[in-house]
Amino acid sequence: MSFGKNISISIFGESHGNGIGTVIEGLPSGIKLDMDEIAQEMKRRAPGQNKLSTTRKEADSAQIQSGVFEGYTTGTPLAAVIANNDTHSKDYSILKTHMRPGHADYAGSVRYSGFNDYRGGGHFSGRLTAPLVFAGAIAKQVLKSYGVTVGAHISQIEHVRDANFDPVNVDATRLHKLLAKELPVIDDTKIDAIKEAILNAKNECDSVGGKIECAIVGLKAGIGNPFFDSLESTIAHLAFSVPAVKAISFGIGEQFAHLRGTVANDSYHLVDNNIKTKTNNNGGITGGISTGMPVIFETVIKPTPSISQQQQTVNIKDNIETTLKIEGRHDPCIVQRAVVVIEAIAAIAVLELWR
Amino acid sequence: MSFGKNISISIFGESHGNGIGTVIEGLPSGIKLDMDEIAQEMKRRAPGQNKLSTTRKEADSAQIQSGVFEGYTTGTPLAAVIANNDTHSKDYSILKTHMRPGHADYAGSVRYSGFNDYRGGGHFSGRLTAPLVFAGAIAKQVLKSYGVTVGAHISQIEHVRDANFDPVNVDATRLHKLLAKELPVIDDTKIDAIKEAILNAKNECDSVGGKIECAIVGLKAGIGNPFFDSLESTIAHLAFSVPAVKAISFGIGEQFAHLRGTVANDSYHLVDNNIKTKTNNNGGITGGISTGMPVIFETVIKPTPSISQQQQTVNIKDNIETTLKIEGRHDPCIVQRAVVVIEAIAAIAVLELWR
Amino acid sequence: MSFGKNISISIFGESHGNGIGTVIEGLPSGIKLDMDEIAQEMKRRAPGQNKLSTTRKEADSAQIQSGVFEGYTTGTPLAAVIANNDTHSKDYSILKTHMRPGHADYAGSVRYSGFNDYRGGGHFSGRLTAPLVFAGAIAKQVLKSYGVTVGAHISQIEHVRDANFDPVNVDATRLHKLLAKELPVIDDTKIDAIKEAILNAKNECDSVGGKIECAIVGLKAGIGNPFFDSLESTIAHLAFSVPAVKAISFGIGEQFAHLRGTVANDSYHLVDNNIKTKTNNNGGITGGISTGMPVIFETVIKPTPSISQQQQTVNIKDNIETTLKIEGRHDPCIVQRAVVVIEAIAAIAVLELWR
Amino acid sequence: MSFGKNISISIFGESHGNGIGTVIEGLPSGIKLDMDEIAQEMKRRAPGQNKLSTTRKEADSAQIQSGVFEGYTTGTPLAAVIANNDTHSKDYSILKTHMRPGHADYAGSVRYSGFNDYRGGGHFSGRLTAPLVFAGAIAKQVLKSYGVTVGAHISQIEHVRDANFDPVNVDATRLHKLLAKELPVIDDTKIDAIKEAILNAKNECDSVGGKIECAIVGLKAGIGNPFFDSLESTIAHLAFSVPAVKAISFGIGEQFAHLRGTVANDSYHLVDNNIKTKTNNNGGITGGISTGMPVIFETVIKPTPSISQQQQTVNIKDNIETTLKIEGRHDPCIVQRAVVVIEAIAAIAVLELWR
Repeated sequence: MSFGKNISISIFGESHGNGIGTVIEGLPSGIKLDMDEIAQEMKRRAPGQNKLSTTRKEADSAQIQSGVFEGYTTGTPLAAVIANNDTHSKDYSILKTHMRPGHADYAGSVRYSGFNDYRGGGHFSGRLTAPLVFAGAIAKQVLKSYGVTVGAHISQIEHVRDANFDPVNVDATRLHKLLAKELPVIDDTKIDAIKEAILNAKNECDSVGGKIECAIVGLKAGIGNPFFDSLESTIAHLAFSVPAVKAISFGIGEQFAHLRGTVANDSYHLVDNNIKTKTNNNGGITGGISTGMPVIFETVIKPTPSISQQQQTVNIKDNIETTLKIEGRHDPCIVQRAVVVIEAIAAIAVLELWR
Repeated sequence: MSFGKNISISIFGESHGNGIGTVIEGLPSGIKLDMDEIAQEMKRRAPGQNKLSTTRKEADSAQIQSGVFEGYTTGTPLAAVIANNDTHSKDYSILKTHMRPGHADYAGSVRYSGFNDYRGGGHFSGRLTAPLVFAGAIAKQVLKSYGVTVGAHISQIEHVRDANFDPVNVDATRLHKLLAKELPVIDDTKIDAIKEAILNAKNECDSVGGKIECAIVGLKAGIGNPFFDSLESTIAHLAFSVPAVKAISFGIGEQFAHLRGTVANDSYHLVDNNIKTKTNNNGGITGGISTGMPVIFETVIKPTPSISQQQQTVNIKDNIETTLKIEGRHDPCIVQRAVVVIEAIAAIAVLELWR
Repeated sequence: MSFGKNISISIFGESHGNGIGTVIEGLPSGIKLDMDEIAQEMKRRAPGQNKLSTTRKEADSAQIQSGVFEGYTTGTPLAAVIANNDTHSKDYSILKTHMRPGHADYAGSVRYSGFNDYRGGGHFSGRLTAPLVFAGAIAKQVLKSYGVTVGAHISQIEHVRDANFDPVNVDATRLHKLLAKELPVIDDTKIDAIKEAILNAKNECDSVGGKIECAIVGLKAGIGNPFFDSLESTIAHLAFSVPAVKAISFGIGEQFAHLRGTVANDSYHLVDNNIKTKTNNNGGITGGISTGMPVIFETVIKPTPSISQQQQTVNIKDNIETTLKIEGRHDPCIVQRAVVVIEAIAAIAVLELWR
Repeated sequence: MSFGKNISISIFGESHGNGIGTVIEGLPSGIKLDMDEIAQEMKRRAPGQNKLSTTRKEADSAQIQSGVFEGYTTGTPLAAVIANNDTHSKDYSILKTHMRPGHADYAGSVRYSGFNDYRGGGHFSGRLTAPLVFAGAIAKQVLKSYGVTVGAHISQIEHVRDANFDPVNVDATRLHKLLAKELPVIDDTKIDAIKEAILNAKNECDSVGGKIECAIVGLKAGIGNPFFDSLESTIAHLAFSVPAVKAISFGIGEQFAHLRGTVANDSYHLVDNNIKTKTNNNGGITGGISTGMPVIFETVIKPTPSISQQQQTVNIKDNIETTLKIEGRHDPCIVQRAVVVIEAIAAIAVLELWR
């Protein structure tokens, strides 16, 4: 179902259907849209960019249907459709009966009583993150007019760990630098090891997971609500709408479990007469509301379940145990393509709570 | 703002106001309510139960206003009010100006332009989890009629780690056993170390954090939705509505980051002709939808920011740096009281998505 | 279920339960509340004020639980509970089986599978409009700070017709004048005929219906949305949430059906350099959005179905035809008490759409 | 913003943009769709069918993007796009400054700060009812599987009045008969007078309004909710989302105002052991919930404001009074094209509340 109260975002489509897309409602009118920037964002997620991802090639060009007039948002619903072009006309019918381990096939089949489109994962496909990225690109342009910038980097691939954002000093300049990189990491010395980890997995017909750390900078204090519509609730809600995300943490996250209050608390001080915290263990959020410090969160991305090794599974039509080897084009790692998706949901979350 | 589409839950109140409470809408009619069980749930969270928590004493007796008739839910809105009794009439006005580090004071003051009730944290107080527990107790009784049981345990306090749930075999019997314990842990040999960790912090005017692991058992496959209303999104949304929760992970969570797909994927097999997974790394959820395996998630609880040591902060009225020593009654650790709160939000999440 | 996205209003309770009430979320912080004015609004609806209404006496004093601090709204949920005091402890059990014609008894019993509280109409009782009036009183005070005033009058009782608002020139002064009247009508010469109509019905153990015309003045242009969240949709949604409302019309309403466009269209002109319409046939709304002219709508209120004459009905327990004579205290006419309820929903609607 | 909680419907587009369309979420899976029937419904609303409507010709062929697989609904979002083909490339810029009386131009321009697409009314165009009809056609097919049929007729054009539905005995057969008619009326002897009224207005460069009466038959008792999500609230909300609707009444509507309770109440009796009402003055709804009798409501449609006579208005750019003669293609009457739109919103409303 669609997301949001202040803005409302629907995404639709199946991996091998006619088209996928989004309808975004509740945008402010009069925001000048930079179409090149939107296309660039789409390209950051698009498949087939290099040998680290699937060979499926999609232009992922979003055709805007409505809501933009003479280059500006009208404030009425903004709809965009992205065609599915590179859909192989092979026989997918085995996916109707043989459940791929780790995928949504089985849960989805039960949920929709077997009527779901199983081709290429159907509506559950990671391809549906393309309209999310589109919506995020729009959200980012709105946020830019509010002085807010969102950026993310690969913080881990398998056992390779990137540096972290400086939670107190990360700023728009540092975030923009990441955009220029093929593999967005803070510590460039880690790039080779990351590539190696991904290609090793690829060569072994396997896949790897990782983490993405995201920062929202320039966000004023006071955004978010106590309890149900907290900034953390809203970001997490959207983050877990992204396929393969299995964990999220804010600020120092798990470290809070073994720290004392004296260490964990972020003391306030004045910087140029503005209230800041000396540390930012809370990741820019207390009581569900932004503090004015950078919002920092990290998500865990599981290894893509599509691997071309034989796996044990069940044939749900005949209710018998069987094996399955998934043919076709796979990503050995989706973390690098998911970076812009995580940025997108962060931007949408902030826009939803903006006031 | 209120939570939910199928059910709708509002919680209201301030720590030192007249009363706190909840309105729950969308409940099925005809559910027989066990009032003793509800009172027992309230007691699990209530303050003043032992020396591990604050000395504030509250009966936390929920007065049902509506929605229950002759012992059964009517299906119309169920409202309950809990009186605030043990409110000290001391002068809280320093909290209007001196922001407590780690608390919502500053973010809340900006959010509400200084009009929020600052006494005892006001609406941001952990006391507001009492109506959440009430709503959860109702949700649990509805879920019981669907064969679903929710249970949780302290999985970590500071550096002391409890055993984990067996993600494949955890069942209602094992969850019920936890209810009888003063400190709900799986491995009873850890109890002394946990108590020691909490009391050490208390003696040193400090506080400690921890983790809570929660299981939902008996949940059929097919609950949840792809993308925005996924089971993970809904649980996480509510989990981050609980004050002090800073991270959540499903299944093996963070471990996904360094695992290969071959290891991480949960293979399907048949058990008594029912489709099960051999492992349950995904924590009972794929594609945002329940698989029929136990749903397992873990939350990180930060150390309560209220500590009676002097901390550096800012006086926002005079915009100067200052120090603050928080007087009053504190919890050296809220993890043990939060166990039932986490269970409550899990139950509410499942009820919201039930179909 | 609760109403609203920007604000969220829940109402709860049953006619003979412990208490009724409301939770209002999303209010701006810092609105100074005039408690006397709120009590005055409650009194306008309260029963037992004169011989034109039921003899049930309720103080309808709303106990605010939360959301108000030192006389100002905090911006957090504002909850209020109203006790049910004058509940006769008579035997209502006949209402469980004998469906009162025109009442919600039968539809409600099916809806809630017989578990609804049938005493005095339970949750379907007009008594539930008391929390609506409370919420409306709060909404009016917020709107006052925006320069918006809402007022209504009895426009018809049975065959007696009051004058209409001047749709172009009605203003706050004229609306305030109505507040001072026992029977709020524009043309005071109609008061005797109205009283006579009501008392005649009362003497004949019958009831009468009528109409209420409402005006919203001071509303700037641009409030409302095209299609689903139009100003008309929002007002109508809430109006039909008021028991006994069976029709609503905006501006000249039904007359549009037989008029030509040349006559119906409201031409624009300039008044003191402000854009106004010469006529206001559209009742201040075009395309679902306010035009800056007074918003005018009229609702039809059916005669209260409770009459102390014998009526034919069905006993749903035994599934046989039977007769029923409703004992107890009734309103021969609820139109005069509903005036403030209609004002309340108008105020809530505007607040929901405010931007 | 989108409509609905159980289902969620977004509509998007502008009269002269790339395309218009809808996204429908929350549909049950496994409903076989009759594409011919959907096309037939689209044709009932489509322009250019005869000389009673505008000469703009649009195929209004909906291209389904997603949510349908092998002829059945998948249960995932169903999106459809309708191209705008017959858009005249004339200069519409006068509509940016010269506000058309009775249209949304002025209110819309204020609402969207002048950034709205003004060509042909933009997002406010009646053309946006095409996706509503599409969504309604889908909803009708779902409702058919529940045994529910929706139908409507022109009940009035200017001074010509059709017969009314028999509120007790109207059934699916009688509703289906209306579908075959070019002008759907109950009393065929009124057709000539209706055509004459429309053509007279057309010849005089004017327009006429009218009324549409709608019936929902086969609806079981118990659908709808007390207060905010009443069946009347939901239908009315959607009805006022249809451009030009200015009033709605349920059952005998306005007549309730002058009737006594003894006359207005619908007595219950048994028909073949089923509980029915002898009369159906309440239009099949009491307490906001269906009674099992036919749901009957009537809407008032204002004369289309587009008339090719000179009208007085204001130029908002120069803030001066001026005149405007609207060129282009107009409907002298939209009532006949709106019949299927009213049916659509009725079907959507019932689907939203279905349980």
